[in-house]
Amino acid sequence: MSIDTNRPASPADRDLRALFDPVSVVVVGASDDERKWGNWLARAAISGSRPLHLVNHTRDTVLGRLAYRSVSDIPGPVGLVAICVPARQVAAAVDDALAAGARAIVAISAGFGETGPAGRRLERDIADRVRNSGALLLGPNCLGVFDAGSGLSLTSNPLPAGRVAFLSQSGNLSLDLAGLLAEHGLGFSRFASLGNQADVDLPELLRACAGHDTTDVVAVYCEQFTDGRRFVAAARDVGKPVVLLSAGSSAASARVAASHTGSMVPASAAVAAACAAAGVHRVHSLGELADLLALLAAPARPDGRRLAILSDGGGHAAVAAELAGLSGLDVPALSAPLRARVGGHLPGHAGTSNPVDVAGGAEQDLHCLARVADDLLGSGEVDALLLSGYFGGYGEYGPDLAAAELAVAERLGDVVLRTGRPVAVQTMFPWGPVAGVLRARGIPVFRRAESATVGLGRLAPEARRRCAAADPRPAQATAATGAPSTTAAGTDYWSARQLLAAAGVPFPAAMLVDGHARLNIAAAALRPPWVLKADGPLHKSDVGGVRMGLRDSDELAAAYDDLVGRLAPAGCVLEEMADVSGGAELIAGVRQDPHFGPVAVVGIGGVYTELLADVQVGLAPLVPRQVLAMLSRLRGAALLTGVRGRGRLDLDAAAQVIALVTEVAAQHPEITELEVNPLLVTAAGALALDARIVTRPPATTQQTGDADIE
Amino acid sequence: MSIDTNRPASPADRDLRALFDPVSVVVVGASDDERKWGNWLARAAISGSRPLHLVNHTRDTVLGRLAYRSVSDIPGPVGLVAICVPARQVAAAVDDALAAGARAIVAISAGFGETGPAGRRLERDIADRVRNSGALLLGPNCLGVFDAGSGLSLTSNPLPAGRVAFLSQSGNLSLDLAGLLAEHGLGFSRFASLGNQADVDLPELLRACAGHDTTDVVAVYCEQFTDGRRFVAAARDVGKPVVLLSAGSSAASARVAASHTGSMVPASAAVAAACAAAGVHRVHSLGELADLLALLAAPARPDGRRLAILSDGGGHAAVAAELAGLSGLDVPALSAPLRARVGGHLPGHAGTSNPVDVAGGAEQDLHCLARVADDLLGSGEVDALLLSGYFGGYGEYGPDLAAAELAVAERLGDVVLRTGRPVAVQTMFPWGPVAGVLRARGIPVFRRAESATVGLGRLAPEARRRCAAADPRPAQATAATGAPSTTAAGTDYWSARQLLAAAGVPFPAAMLVDGHARLNIAAAALRPPWVLKADGPLHKSDVGGVRMGLRDSDELAAAYDDLVGRLAPAGCVLEEMADVSGGAELIAGVRQDPHFGPVAVVGIGGVYTELLADVQVGLAPLVPRQVLAMLSRLRGAALLTGVRGRGRLDLDAAAQVIALVTEVAAQHPEITELEVNPLLVTAAGALALDARIVTRPPATTQQTGDADIE
Repeated sequence: MSIDTNRPASPADRDLRALFDPVSVVVVGASDDERKWGNWLARAAISGSRPLHLVNHTRDTVLGRLAYRSVSDIPGPVGLVAICVPARQVAAAVDDALAAGARAIVAISAGFGETGPAGRRLERDIADRVRNSGALLLGPNCLGVFDAGSGLSLTSNPLPAGRVAFLSQSGNLSLDLAGLLAEHGLGFSRFASLGNQADVDLPELLRACAGHDTTDVVAVYCEQFTDGRRFVAAARDVGKPVVLLSAGSSAASARVAASHTGSMVPASAAVAAACAAAGVHRVHSLGELADLLALLAAPARPDGRRLAILSDGGGHAAVAAELAGLSGLDVPALSAPLRARVGGHLPGHAGTSNPVDVAGGAEQDLHCLARVADDLLGSGEVDALLLSGYFGGYGEYGPDLAAAELAVAERLGDVVLRTGRPVAVQTMFPWGPVAGVLRARGIPVFRRAESATVGLGRLAPEARRRCAAADPRPAQATAATGAPSTTAAGTDYWSARQLLAAAGVPFPAAMLVDGHARLNIAAAALRPPWVLKADGPLHKSDVGGVRMGLRDSDELAAAYDDLVGRLAPAGCVLEEMADVSGGAELIAGVRQDPHFGPVAVVGIGGVYTELLADVQVGLAPLVPRQVLAMLSRLRGAALLTGVRGRGRLDLDAAAQVIALVTEVAAQHPEITELEVNPLLVTAAGALALDARIVTRPPATTQQTGDADIE
Repeated sequence: MSIDTNRPASPADRDLRALFDPVSVVVVGASDDERKWGNWLARAAISGSRPLHLVNHTRDTVLGRLAYRSVSDIPGPVGLVAICVPARQVAAAVDDALAAGARAIVAISAGFGETGPAGRRLERDIADRVRNSGALLLGPNCLGVFDAGSGLSLTSNPLPAGRVAFLSQSGNLSLDLAGLLAEHGLGFSRFASLGNQADVDLPELLRACAGHDTTDVVAVYCEQFTDGRRFVAAARDVGKPVVLLSAGSSAASARVAASHTGSMVPASAAVAAACAAAGVHRVHSLGELADLLALLAAPARPDGRRLAILSDGGGHAAVAAELAGLSGLDVPALSAPLRARVGGHLPGHAGTSNPVDVAGGAEQDLHCLARVADDLLGSGEVDALLLSGYFGGYGEYGPDLAAAELAVAERLGDVVLRTGRPVAVQTMFPWGPVAGVLRARGIPVFRRAESATVGLGRLAPEARRRCAAADPRPAQATAATGAPSTTAAGTDYWSARQLLAAAGVPFPAAMLVDGHARLNIAAAALRPPWVLKADGPLHKSDVGGVRMGLRDSDELAAAYDDLVGRLAPAGCVLEEMADVSGGAELIAGVRQDPHFGPVAVVGIGGVYTELLADVQVGLAPLVPRQVLAMLSRLRGAALLTGVRGRGRLDLDAAAQVIALVTEVAAQHPEITELEVNPLLVTAAGALALDARIVTRPPATTQQTGDADIE
């Protein structure tokens, strides 16, 4: 378990102004050497507007400015101290800074927790000293901090100012995102490099964005969620949209993330569950992050997934509609009255369904685009509008068209404000003056239609649900409850059954049998047909350890001899065979995530579990109401609510059982995996037909006692 | 059936040089009015290098040049004639042109087949006249033609020259793609706007690319495949990579495409089957098209899906690895010897697994990137390399780094040529001088990592397969065999069964029963347990029209009375109930596509058919070998080859039955849908448990007799 239980609980709302709005800035290790961080940060700080002091242990001037030998030599008040000296000198520099009254330390220096246990101890020692003096520590192994509003500039490269806060575990990604945001006319209100999070961590930085007036949206890049549940709580409380880019769902990205941060990357399913619980938008690439931020920064956001498409060419219209469908959006047909209104602005051969194809109407009168947009968004029949095609380039044909095009761009901005519904524009001319007006009026402009549709799909709640179901990684979510790791210790079916049954999970009547005598007793007590299970191995059916449909004592005895002869199990379980006809098989599983705690997986079970990968994830424990909502979001929800003449299944009973399973797991942190599969649900109720438990191996349990992050 | 059987079979290899390399160009309808096609095309033609003549019926000069009143007034030889006059004047203009010896006509004018039957007749009449004179007709309702090599320029906007041929049903998309290709340093060898394809059509244009020396890659945008099988044959024969962007898998894009081209858009599944059969790469957006063309235009293409990632930052490395996984690529761990070799070029703390994270090594010596790239691609352990991060921007720090960076870009070009394996670069600086060198050396440069990974995923054969399985539209493929249209006429189960059984498809023993007397006879002849099916409705199980597991004559009589009482069916079928235990249920379906003919769907069947949407599509008829290959590509292939202790199923028997089903469908074009579901496959063979047929309704059959495209 990697949750650091030794870590002192941070006060929920520490004031981070000492970090983002310091009375002065000091750079320790400031340098003239252009290959050093001490040079980059000093130059950045000079470009900022805060009072600045440079410290160099051996030189009197740096970058042409007076340099002090020590922080204690500085005459004025000391606020934020950035430390860019080698790791072995950091502790002394921190002491020096604290003695001089520093309220915040930004430790750029690497060579701490990311290098191993010794570095981790050193890092913890420094963090304690800072915390005990009532100051804040960002880092170590971090790449700086930036605040546009306070004029704080402590990053290796200049960043554009704007209204997006970016909290990132990667420095280079902040430069990349800065470029992508600048293309959208956006920039950063604030940037903090997370580093090793020895003191100030992601949840605390996230919380601080709540009260930061110049931040409208928060973007996060994170590989290591030290305490995932605190992240969830902070994201839920921040009161502003949060978009998360995280890596680690692939083995390769986990490999690099491990080498990068010295920590295990949480499994993708746990991150998905956390995002669902926190209402965080999740993206998979930096480009997608920038596009979604552009849509979120607009004055209006879509309330649903109904998209109108307006185009000046059939090809753009058809491709945009195709992409909208792939992103989980609907492109609904328009009502007859709306089609008539729209058609009134257009030539007779224009397409007035949805997409609306103005078909040459724009060349005749560009203002038709604004009129149609107004009709579409004012109608209540759609939630957003995508304008796709040549718009933005008509002005190249002459001054009249150029003036008209700029006027239409302004009118589109008015339409957004009047209707409260967003417009997004795909254009071949994203750098022209029209695009500039659109961005200034809060209309995001995209070079590619797919950028707009993917982003709008992420924003529309129902579309998000659809796309989560269609996430192109069927194996991932299932992997969360998949094969146990080689170090895990599995228990037998009977023990799992006993634990769950004690909590109230219903199973068919069964008895543990060992030898023919007990087999006969059990056969007399239990109603045929029976199931005989060899107990012990986790995947009984993989080794032919389950014999079903046994109807009399001869069949039973033969099956018993076969199992014992082939598998030599510790024991066997004889169970009444449930009537599965007309029922559906579910899976209810819980996996202990090292960062997010118990994560529940609910979905279609049985032999199709892996193949369907039709599961929903959530943070355990769950209550039945939450389980029912998850079941309703399954792709195969129709299988549960009655299709093809089958009756309605007792989903309330199933939800209650699944909630019980998640509670058991949450109460037993030593259980790393707990699974009921299949859970049979029929019109008459729910019944667990198999169960398994994986517990933490003893070695790991001892490590947990050490409370060290491994 | 929309395949135009009246259309004369085009000679397989007409010489299209008269269209792309004419002795002279004539623009009929040339105009000084800047809002007219006659103005745009005349200006474009002036910019080209072919001998040019302008024709205007009323003016002596146009655009400051001599204009003729008629084509017949032109003194020199007449080659290609572009016609930009209103629809009602086109026939006369064509006659005039042919009389003057024109070898090719490009009919820009709209108002023909896309407007309805009258326009279609007019269009066909013109096409006949052109064809009878031995000339070629492009259009009508098309947007021009361009050939970089021959200096032919007849499009509304200038297009960049390069080595990509683009055959498009949309004019605006060509402008958009031109911009996207120009960003990659690419352009068009040739462009043809398809228009209504009254004479020269997509397959013919595609074939002509085979012998076009300056074309390396062919891009196609098409909504209307007049004769899909000819497209497949042409794409297979062209001998160069073909990339298809098509729209129409969503209802909305079908709506606009219908209004745009006056033709039904083929269902997405049929297009997928055609692409698989022809080896065509399929994309869903214009941006993806441009990115894939950039990868295809490079001197080396990947042979597999093993991707190495090289980065100068952990964040970029982790995100690229995540994206690679989402695109179906593998990012394999490197062997110990290769890691040692790579590590020899890098600082001690660099990540030498895959991704390789140089971790500051680039700042110390940029050449390490080329050395590592050479080791990685020369190792044989990977098929391609993605360099991701800051590369391309180091030069901003000073002249030494700038020179080193350009040298590294050149060295990367050498590595590609030496190893025969491709490099792709993601950079924050896609417009800088380093990016220019990379592109010049055949290394595609991307602003966004996802552009590179999606493209590489499309190129790697195994990755394509993976992603096809994970296509985020589970309902689409199934829709191909989904609910019949309201106008279709379904036949009863017994008829379907008789047709298929006569062809050799095995069914359980069964008898048609009507009344208790025949029921008793059947019960005596057939082994219990029985299944009783009410015959008639297509979805018997939806209405409770199937009673299973009937064991004696009492149960049977009661079930019969129930079905007859509730449903009053035309008849009932009594059938021996198959033992499904240990078996798997498949679906084998064929749908007549109006453009591609019979399209076969093979996959996991039974109640999970729609939910799993785990199907493969192919062009029918199929032979058993093809069916086996399709089954092996199913996500759930493991269910068929024996999992969880189940024995091996007789897939050869299943493949033979499925091949029979596709043959029956191919031999009966009047059957619009034919489906066996479930097809039970066990260790002992394959058995059809249900079947249905939908035939063309009489009205449509009559329309087919008219041989009109509807």
